[in-house]
Parts: sequence; structure tokens; C-alpha cells
Amino acid sequence: MSDSDGIRFLEGGTVTSPRGFVAGATYAGIKTYAEDKLDLGLLMSQYPCSVAAVFTTNRLKSASVILCRERVAKGRVRALVVNSGIANTCVGEQGYKDAQETTALAAKHLDLDPEEVAICSTGVIGVELPMALIRAGIPKIELSPRGGHDLARAILTTDTRPKEAAVSFRQGSRTVNIGGIVKGAGMIHPNMATMLSFITTDAEMEQGLLQRALKEAVDQSFNMVSVDGDTSPNDTVLLFANGAAGAGPIMAGTPEYSKFLEALTALTVHLAKEIARDGEGAHRLLEVVVEGAVTLEEARMAARTIVSSNLVKAAVYGADPNWGRVVTALGRSGAEMDADRIDLYINDVCILYQGTPIPFHKDAVVAIMRGPQVSFRVCLNLGQARATAWGCDLSEDYVTINSAYTT
Amino acid sequence: MSDSDGIRFLEGGTVTSPRGFVAGATYAGIKTYAEDKLDLGLLMSQYPCSVAAVFTTNRLKSASVILCRERVAKGRVRALVVNSGIANTCVGEQGYKDAQETTALAAKHLDLDPEEVAICSTGVIGVELPMALIRAGIPKIELSPRGGHDLARAILTTDTRPKEAAVSFRQGSRTVNIGGIVKGAGMIHPNMATMLSFITTDAEMEQGLLQRALKEAVDQSFNMVSVDGDTSPNDTVLLFANGAAGAGPIMAGTPEYSKFLEALTALTVHLAKEIARDGEGAHRLLEVVVEGAVTLEEARMAARTIVSSNLVKAAVYGADPNWGRVVTALGRSGAEMDADRIDLYINDVCILYQGTPIPFHKDAVVAIMRGPQVSFRVCLNLGQARATAWGCDLSEDYVTINSAYTT
Repeated sequence: MSDSDGIRFLEGGTVTSPRGFVAGATYAGIKTYAEDKLDLGLLMSQYPCSVAAVFTTNRLKSASVILCRERVAKGRVRALVVNSGIANTCVGEQGYKDAQETTALAAKHLDLDPEEVAICSTGVIGVELPMALIRAGIPKIELSPRGGHDLARAILTTDTRPKEAAVSFRQGSRTVNIGGIVKGAGMIHPNMATMLSFITTDAEMEQGLLQRALKEAVDQSFNMVSVDGDTSPNDTVLLFANGAAGAGPIMAGTPEYSKFLEALTALTVHLAKEIARDGEGAHRLLEVVVEGAVTLEEARMAARTIVSSNLVKAAVYGADPNWGRVVTALGRSGAEMDADRIDLYINDVCILYQGTPIPFHKDAVVAIMRGPQVSFRVCLNLGQARATAWGCDLSEDYVTINSAYTT
Repeated sequence: MSDSDGIRFLEGGTVTSPRGFVAGATYAGIKTYAEDKLDLGLLMSQYPCSVAAVFTTNRLKSASVILCRERVAKGRVRALVVNSGIANTCVGEQGYKDAQETTALAAKHLDLDPEEVAICSTGVIGVELPMALIRAGIPKIELSPRGGHDLARAILTTDTRPKEAAVSFRQGSRTVNIGGIVKGAGMIHPNMATMLSFITTDAEMEQGLLQRALKEAVDQSFNMVSVDGDTSPNDTVLLFANGAAGAGPIMAGTPEYSKFLEALTALTVHLAKEIARDGEGAHRLLEVVVEGAVTLEEARMAARTIVSSNLVKAAVYGADPNWGRVVTALGRSGAEMDADRIDLYINDVCILYQGTPIPFHKDAVVAIMRGPQVSFRVCLNLGQARATAWGCDLSEDYVTINSAYTT
């Protein structure tokens, strides 16, 4: 539990921590390879709500993403059905039909209209959803206000642990909550990682503003994470706001909106770092801060390029203070830079000052880099913009996990 | 030796195969970690010549690159001094002074003006050139028409073998030669890879046209190779044309120019593939062909994105026909695509047709993928543009090589 500006992380917090949300999951038999036998889940707001969403930018899109986007655009969504194990991607026309039927089955079970149900899938590409299993599975799901923990497990693929959190803050005399779960960039045999995150809040906000808040928070959190540079066709973040806190609507340009955005960003940054920490084969969290950039866009580009570099990631794995790789990645990022003005710090030890290497105690830096987190801070000393990105080291385990061909 | 349109690869061909070029190398003591004890070399045209060059796009640039670019721009260059072991990058003002002195020493030894000497460096970042070693080394270098083989060794860092080739073709009654050497994307402890290539020809061509030909050839060869996605601050390709074949000047828009460009491209593609094959930890060559793209730019972008994907590369290492990763990388490349029109072939076996997976004999494809080369061919079926990119698999060895911290 931490406290900053009255924003508090809740112990045991999850996607059903905000009032008026229920969830549940079952094992339908889709995710045969995983130890955790939950693979099909439901999330529902007990009241009508606003929904905001951010989807993959990959031009290849899961049929589930295509239907989900249509439903969110119509503005009536208040529930979600999600499966892990199969991505519902690259399966021709059948994919969209299966997505429709799955939401219809969920709607029937939840006593909703199909238009009120969104859908997400993650898993193997090029395999059709096993509809017989889904038809049998959905009616078995029991939803409860404590069901968020099961849902957090049901969306995992090669993640090693569930990732969930919730924050709360005061709005007038009421406590408002935001809760979320996420699955990370684990790889699914024989295919690919997907980032899914589902976030709920009992704050009240109209859909346009909610979308703006989500976009802003995602740009500072999930969009600043890289495990291996590959974007899935299934990436989806959904944010549901049902107003059940009874604190009244949050309007644009108010202190209440700023507070909500701050809390939402704190939550998504927390979940984003959890993804990076649980990256495949990862041994430590890598944080890259770029300061003094000319524009925010350039600061983000530079931080993302450094955190994504195989060479930087391999050096972090080896606890090697190989700063030449950091400035080289910076140099190809496209951000404006002057090589003679750069300062570079590794976990607060200054390595490069005004572009010239300064003698540092190598063994001490190596020892620091063997810890659970390595931070690079680059000061470009050109402007005021600042951005942070998160990733993980590149280990032999990553290669082993992703190259093992199992028949 | 192959023959296509009269373009012939010469057995034992190298950078001194064209007439009127001499080269040599010595061990100055700079590259202490390598087994091959050659680290300082010279290349010279015995006649005045035209020079074209392509340099790194990294905003971080070696002082050697900065001086080399100035010299090439002045149009008098006919010789080159090159060292491996130290990159002459991130060393403040001293880097430029050392580059100047190194070219002056080379000029004296070659009886040229310093303005006629270009310079390249590759190796560790953040360490000054050991000028005492260079001062002692340069006078020891003996140049000869067979010296290209030594020069090919002297530019290597973690490459496992020298890479050299030459082609010839007829121009009128004369034989024209183009020869080249290259060093690849090996990693230098504790720093980074550099791609250097030096190409010579006894064809005669004015500098502007030569530059156009080089740019076009590099765009189809070296710019289509990726080992690990990192661009060095030292990358340089130099092309010297001295006219010593006596075949007369090659003019723009003529059949002679087309033939020259074809031969130059054949040579640079050959050298580019050698780099990919000798990538760190590489076990097999990966070739990606993208056909039917709307524009050439998009075809190149798509091919490069696929060949650079860690997930694709890990699958190639594991001989895993994991086509989902290929179409996913394609989807994030930015190239226009219609998921329902894509065809995909692995070493000529059709895996995906019009966007739908077709049943293929997995064991047979796995067996094919265990060979020395894996090829993915993607047909977008949207336009006429086509591009090829080359890379290598991602193995545990790559990570081990690049994470080992040695004090």
C-alpha cells in the first residue's frame, strides 16, 4: 500500500474491487498446455456503464478484436467474455461467426442483450475456437464480487503469475475505486503474446471523456512496455465506468478529472511494470528514463528504442554496464540529440557526463546491476520533455522458450 | 563461379581483384581480444579515382565517420586507413584529432596528401585510439595487389571468417572487375557491431553517378540485412572506381551503366548474405521475400520487419514452422495488407493461402527448416512491388555472447 496525493493501492485489489462489478471463470478445456486450468471468464457491471477501449495497431486483427471494437463503438457494452488458449485470428470468416456466437451465449447466461457483451481472445493463431467447449463452459461460470481473482488467472497464457491491482481516492465525500487485471507478453506455443487488460471503476464519466483518460494513461503505461518488440493482433485494453461509487459525474477540466487520471495512470503504470517483470525469461525489470528531450514524442521514442534493444537487454541480463549500447540505441531512435551534451546514469551512478565517459567503479556498478531492477537515465539536455519505458532483460531462457518445437 | 547475364563471380576474388588497387595490413596491437592478429590496414588506388560512400544513419557518429565523410565530400579520396578493435566513438574532441593524425600518418606512408585518405574504425566505444601503436604500425604495412585478403582479415571483430568476393563483366572489348570485402554485425566486447564494406572497381565513372549506383545497390543489399536491429555509429560503405580497366567512362542511362549496377548489386547482395550467415550465434540464413506489395518502400519495410522479429528468428532457430509470427510481424510493419489475401510459403511449401491456413505436413516442413537456409515468401497480392531481406536465427548463443561480462 502506497499513498501519493491521496491515491492508495488496495491490498488484494483486483478488477472486481470497484463497486458493482462481478466476475467469474471456468475451465472449458481450451488451454490444454497450461497448469492453471481456468481459460474462460466473464466480467459484468451490475449497472449500465460507459466503456472506453484501446486496440492493437497491428493490421492483422483477431476476429474477436473486430467484433469487440464494433460493440464498444455502439456504446452499450457492460460485460465481457474472454478466453485464453486460442486467439481467434487467421481463421477466415468462421472467426467472426464464432465471436458472435460466444457473445450471444454469454449474453444469455448474464441476461443481457448480445450488443452489451464485448469479447477478447488470446492464444494460438490459425486455430478455430472450439465452440462445443465454449457452449458447455459459459453456463458453468458463476459470477461474484470476489471473482476478479479467478478472471485474472483465466486470461493468462505463459505468464508465470496473475497480475491485478486496485487504487482508490476521494471524490467529495465518497471513495472512488479503479481496479484492473492484465496478462502480459508471454508467448503461446506455437504462436504469440497478447497484452490484455481489463479495468473497472465505480467513478461516473461519459464515454468520450473516459476514452480520453484511457488513451492518456495507456500512452504512459502499456504503450511504454516492450518485452520483445512484437505487437499482437489481439491486444486490447477495456475500461468500464459504472458510477456505483455514487460520487457523481466527473467532468472534463475539473480537479476531479485530474485526480481520476492520476489514479488511472498510477494503476496502469503498476500493471505495465508487472508485465515487464514477468516477461518471458526475464530476470530483472529494466527501466529507461529519458529527460531533457525536445518533445514528449521524442522522449518516448528514445526510451522505447533503448528498452527494446536486444543489445541493451542482453547487457542487462549479464549485469554489464555496457553504456555504449545505450547511447547507440538512443542515436538510432530518431530523437534529436547532441552527442556532446548527453549525461547517462546507471541506477544513479553517472557513467557519461556531457558526452564524455567518466571513470566509474565497474565492480560496484556490476553489483548494482545484479539486483532486481536496472535503471538507465539519459539526460539529453536539449529541452524539457521526459518519458519512462519498461522492459526486461534478454536471457537464454527467452530463446529457449520461443524456439522449442514441440509436436 | 556463377554466370548470369555475363556477370561472373571470380574464384578467390577480393577488394584488390580490380586492376590498380593495392592493400595490406599489420598487427598494431589494438585488437587484443581476437585470435586473428591483424587490426590495421590500408587500401589504395594506384591512380586517381572517383569515390562514393554511404554512412551510418545513427545520430551518434564515430569521429572517424565524421572525418571520412568530409574527405569523401571533397572528392579527392583514393586511399583508406582502417583499424579494428576501437571505434573512436564517444571520446570527445580527441577522436577527431586522432582520426586526422591517423590519416596524415597513412598519407605519409603512401606518399599522398592527407586529403586523399579516408578513415574507418570499428570496435569498442568510449576508448581513445592508441596513437602510439598506430604511429608504429602504419609504416610497417606493405601493400600489394594480393593484399586484399589481409585487409579482409584486419577489419574483422567477432566475425568468424573473412568475407570477400569479386565479380567481372564485359564492357566493350574489356573486362571490368568489381571487388569487395565486408565485416559483419559481430559484437565487440564491451560494445557494438559495425558493418564496414570496402568495394573497388576498375570501371570508370564520375562521382555523382557512382554515388547513385552505390546507393541503389546498398538499398537492395546491406540495407536489407539485420542481425539484431542495432545500427552502429561507425557503419560505412566505400566504393572506389579508378578506370584502370581502360574500358572508358560509363555514362548515365546507358546499357553499360545498367550492367555495372547489376554487377555491383550482385556483389553487394552476396556480401550482405555473408554478413547474415555469419551473424553472432547464427546457425542458418533467413531469407524473407515480400511480393505483391503496393510500393517498393512497403515491400522493403515488410521484409525487414519480418527478418528482424525476435519471435520469427527464435522460431527459425527451433525449425518451428510458426507462421503466425510471420504474419503478425507483417501486420505491424506498416505495409498495406489485406489479411484475407495473403499467401505464405516456407521454403516453397504453401502454408497460408488467401489468408486461410492450409493443412501441411509439419514434420516435412520442420525437416526442411533444419537446413542451412530458411526462406519465407509472403505474397500480399495487392500490387507489383517486391523486396528481399536477409537475417539469421536467434539462438541462446547470441544471448550468451552478448551478455557475458568479462572483467
